[in-house]
Amino acid sequence: MFTLGLDYGTNSVRALIVRCADGAEFGSAVFNYPSGHQGVLLDPRDHHLARQHPGDHLAGLEQAVRGALAIARKRRGFSADKIVGLGVDTTGSSPIPVDARNVPLALQKKWRGNLHAQCWLWKDHTSVREAAQITALARKHRPQFLAKCGGAYSSEWFWAKLWHCRNVAPKVFAAAHSWVELADWIPAVLAGVTAPEQIVRGVCCAGHKALYADDWGGLPDKKFLALLDPQLAALRDRLYEKAHDATVPAGKLCAAWAKKLGLPAGLPIAIGEMDVHYGAIGCGVAEGVLVKVIGTSSCDCGVVSAKKTVRDIPGISGIVKGAILPGHYGIEAGQSAVGDIFKWWVEVVCKGDGAMHAAFTAEAAKLKPGATGLLALDWNNGNRNLLGDPLLTGLLLGQTLYTTPAEIYRALLEATAFGARAILDRLREYGVRTDRIVCAGGIAEKNPLLMQIYADVTGCTMQVSASSQACALGSAIGAAVLAGAHRDFPSAQKAMTSVRPKAYRSIRAHQKTYDQLYALYRQVHDAFGGLDQSADLSGVMKALLALKRG
Amino acid sequence: MFTLGLDYGTNSVRALIVRCADGAEFGSAVFNYPSGHQGVLLDPRDHHLARQHPGDHLAGLEQAVRGALAIARKRRGFSADKIVGLGVDTTGSSPIPVDARNVPLALQKKWRGNLHAQCWLWKDHTSVREAAQITALARKHRPQFLAKCGGAYSSEWFWAKLWHCRNVAPKVFAAAHSWVELADWIPAVLAGVTAPEQIVRGVCCAGHKALYADDWGGLPDKKFLALLDPQLAALRDRLYEKAHDATVPAGKLCAAWAKKLGLPAGLPIAIGEMDVHYGAIGCGVAEGVLVKVIGTSSCDCGVVSAKKTVRDIPGISGIVKGAILPGHYGIEAGQSAVGDIFKWWVEVVCKGDGAMHAAFTAEAAKLKPGATGLLALDWNNGNRNLLGDPLLTGLLLGQTLYTTPAEIYRALLEATAFGARAILDRLREYGVRTDRIVCAGGIAEKNPLLMQIYADVTGCTMQVSASSQACALGSAIGAAVLAGAHRDFPSAQKAMTSVRPKAYRSIRAHQKTYDQLYALYRQVHDAFGGLDQSADLSGVMKALLALKRG
Repeated sequence: MFTLGLDYGTNSVRALIVRCADGAEFGSAVFNYPSGHQGVLLDPRDHHLARQHPGDHLAGLEQAVRGALAIARKRRGFSADKIVGLGVDTTGSSPIPVDARNVPLALQKKWRGNLHAQCWLWKDHTSVREAAQITALARKHRPQFLAKCGGAYSSEWFWAKLWHCRNVAPKVFAAAHSWVELADWIPAVLAGVTAPEQIVRGVCCAGHKALYADDWGGLPDKKFLALLDPQLAALRDRLYEKAHDATVPAGKLCAAWAKKLGLPAGLPIAIGEMDVHYGAIGCGVAEGVLVKVIGTSSCDCGVVSAKKTVRDIPGISGIVKGAILPGHYGIEAGQSAVGDIFKWWVEVVCKGDGAMHAAFTAEAAKLKPGATGLLALDWNNGNRNLLGDPLLTGLLLGQTLYTTPAEIYRALLEATAFGARAILDRLREYGVRTDRIVCAGGIAEKNPLLMQIYADVTGCTMQVSASSQACALGSAIGAAVLAGAHRDFPSAQKAMTSVRPKAYRSIRAHQKTYDQLYALYRQVHDAFGGLDQSADLSGVMKALLALKRG
Repeated sequence: MFTLGLDYGTNSVRALIVRCADGAEFGSAVFNYPSGHQGVLLDPRDHHLARQHPGDHLAGLEQAVRGALAIARKRRGFSADKIVGLGVDTTGSSPIPVDARNVPLALQKKWRGNLHAQCWLWKDHTSVREAAQITALARKHRPQFLAKCGGAYSSEWFWAKLWHCRNVAPKVFAAAHSWVELADWIPAVLAGVTAPEQIVRGVCCAGHKALYADDWGGLPDKKFLALLDPQLAALRDRLYEKAHDATVPAGKLCAAWAKKLGLPAGLPIAIGEMDVHYGAIGCGVAEGVLVKVIGTSSCDCGVVSAKKTVRDIPGISGIVKGAILPGHYGIEAGQSAVGDIFKWWVEVVCKGDGAMHAAFTAEAAKLKPGATGLLALDWNNGNRNLLGDPLLTGLLLGQTLYTTPAEIYRALLEATAFGARAILDRLREYGVRTDRIVCAGGIAEKNPLLMQIYADVTGCTMQVSASSQACALGSAIGAAVLAGAHRDFPSAQKAMTSVRPKAYRSIRAHQKTYDQLYALYRQVHDAFGGLDQSADLSGVMKALLALKRG
């Protein structure tokens, strides 16, 4: 038996066919989105804007699945009729405005070229002002909302984006019958759903991005939404009452798409989750096992049994019952830039390429902890956790007239490790057990120096997922459980996931130095982040941004 | 009538022949020191060390003077016998250990290769610990010493260097009969002085670098020096009792050197001053006219009539009666790195050259104040004023994933302008009039963007000295006054100095933005510099340096 996982990333979609018995990967294909810059629609006047064309998602669906099938067919023991289920993960929050037939406005002639009618990609930051207003309103009227998302609503999330659309493109907003997360929309398309009301919505996106919780009756109440905008309150009726965990199927493969893809019609489709959530499953997430997906940004996923109580955790983006693993609280945190910071340093500042990454890494690897005399904050793209503040910016200090670019590169690696430790310490402080850390993502696989620094800074052994396609694997596992190939998630994970033999263990002497450096990091972090009220420099970065804007 | 000015810089010595009537430059020649790296003896194990070989000074003396004479002779109306005096300026504090015959130890076979037996160049920073101890001891026992040097004794200065020599090279220290500043030694050599006791010492170096003041009986008393080291107390008897202003000649050109140089014997030699002090004279320094010499570092010189009272000015390196201009208090302040910071950014980090400086400047010039969103501290080489702390390091904040190297370049230009404003504001606050600023130095001449930023940040019109050789011109003016070619310094300056037609006036809109940016700069400056005791982050940079050391 096999299942097929679809992983919709920022620049491409991947289809992966895996054997349910052992997770062996039989075929995989990637489709690069043809629109915009590497699949991202940009606005040269506003670098906060990032959209995606839903047509790319559909074109990629067919091409990637057919590509993966073509490869798998060459392997002994495989045939398409042995596929027993499909799973889908995508970026999120990436909401799409759709009409009453579940067709994205962006696919309609009238709205085709309109950036606001597209899929609002997770990393779109145009809604900073709306997010801040939601935070302020919730603080006053619905503090329980904020308690579950770390104290601040993000500009990357569902309601901020919808509200911003209402503000800047009211016609698009008025034309949208409903809005659907990409993670819910793809399974719905595969299932042939032609009305938004019939879409099965996943609790991952709903809970982590749209303030959904059974505790307070699902999505935010209309009274609260009306404080934002009456039209958002009105929209609530055209969204959904209930969101589900991964035990609930999203539907069955419809005949039309079965034909397009070359798969048996009627295959069960697992509920859509966000890429890192299925990725966590693909890395073996369980109580005590934290998964870190480290790429351009990073995402940390942990779970705690739903039979226990999880305290509200200030500064941690989300605690959602049923997200990630059924029967558990899903806990999500993250850093808004990791690889993007190294890429900025090498490509934007030093005008280099992959060879320069390698050269800097080799040079930086020769240095001992503390040897650079440098300290950086990992805020070039704002801070997601612990501060939940997109208007923070980068900081580097300690440079002399002799400081080299490779030393700065190392300081930037270390800065992201300190940011990772801040999150880890906070989770532990609030009782989230972390016995092991399993990492996934390109950087985790390719950068042993970074992994060693993370081990040394956190004092935790860092393992790396055996699969390079942990997200697609996770969605295939979701499909395997749904199809009954495994009894439940833990047994499916046991059979289908593993870690690489090489683990990164902390070196005591390094750890000792990094404890001192981390204390300095926290001192600067807390001063500029506003946590240290006596040494409060939190106004500096915002004042600079204000001057920059005007 | 003509005079000859000799300007001993960090990498070369220049001889300049000028006409006393109008300051016209008739001949000029440069000799690049042959030893070490561009004339600086370095220690690869310790980048704080910077020494210079006195043999280079002597070789350069002959070659530069003969070179300048050869050029001047081609001009109508000039002949060597029309030269009526010599003046000398040098870097400082650059003390040389000499024997009882006034011969530098470095010129003796026994000590030739010993770095500690050389001239200890102004920018040698090996004596940080000694300087801190002198500051601590003076704070306790002789607060009046610190009151005149801004509150901290510097590692660049005379006693710190001598004490460090005593600590790390006791044999060299024991072999030295006396120590002489380069600014005093060159005139003494020209005058044929063969005993250190007979050297005429200038009050510029003595007052600004060696804690000399008539108020407390000359150099620091033996009791205080004994707190440092008994051998420093013993040395005091072999130094000097009295230091003089520029009304006192250093001597007359001896026959031997007259022959070597091709000049008439018996020419009056003006007293030696530090390069920027004679440079200030060459730029027309007067009460109300501040001179800024902007190069790798920067030096600000102001004067106040000695008939007035000058309050002690915290954070300003020096107030010395008779320094710079006779009959005035000389006030010196400065920034420990200016051009060096831009050079570091372009050459060390971005691996570029002069063309990259030009490209960054062109790109940076297109940006409005505030447009980068960046803020930097100009501390890559420590902070000389207002903080007097060599253990501070650089800081850059505000960077995003889009920040370009040219934007950072602009932020570094602005950082040095903010540092300049901090000094200027402090001087004004303590009653030092500043109606005009005249700049000199390569950067002032070649970088209109920097000059405009300085005007916009300080709100002051910036003028540029007409002479590119303001220091050598100043020492030639010193010789002209001494030789009686002019009645006094003001009349000599009026005749012999001028500014370029192009002046940089502040633009009101820029000034307004920079007022806001400067307030942010001061907030960060004061927090990391330790001036703001509630938001005190002054331990961070020092802790990093301590970790770096091991």
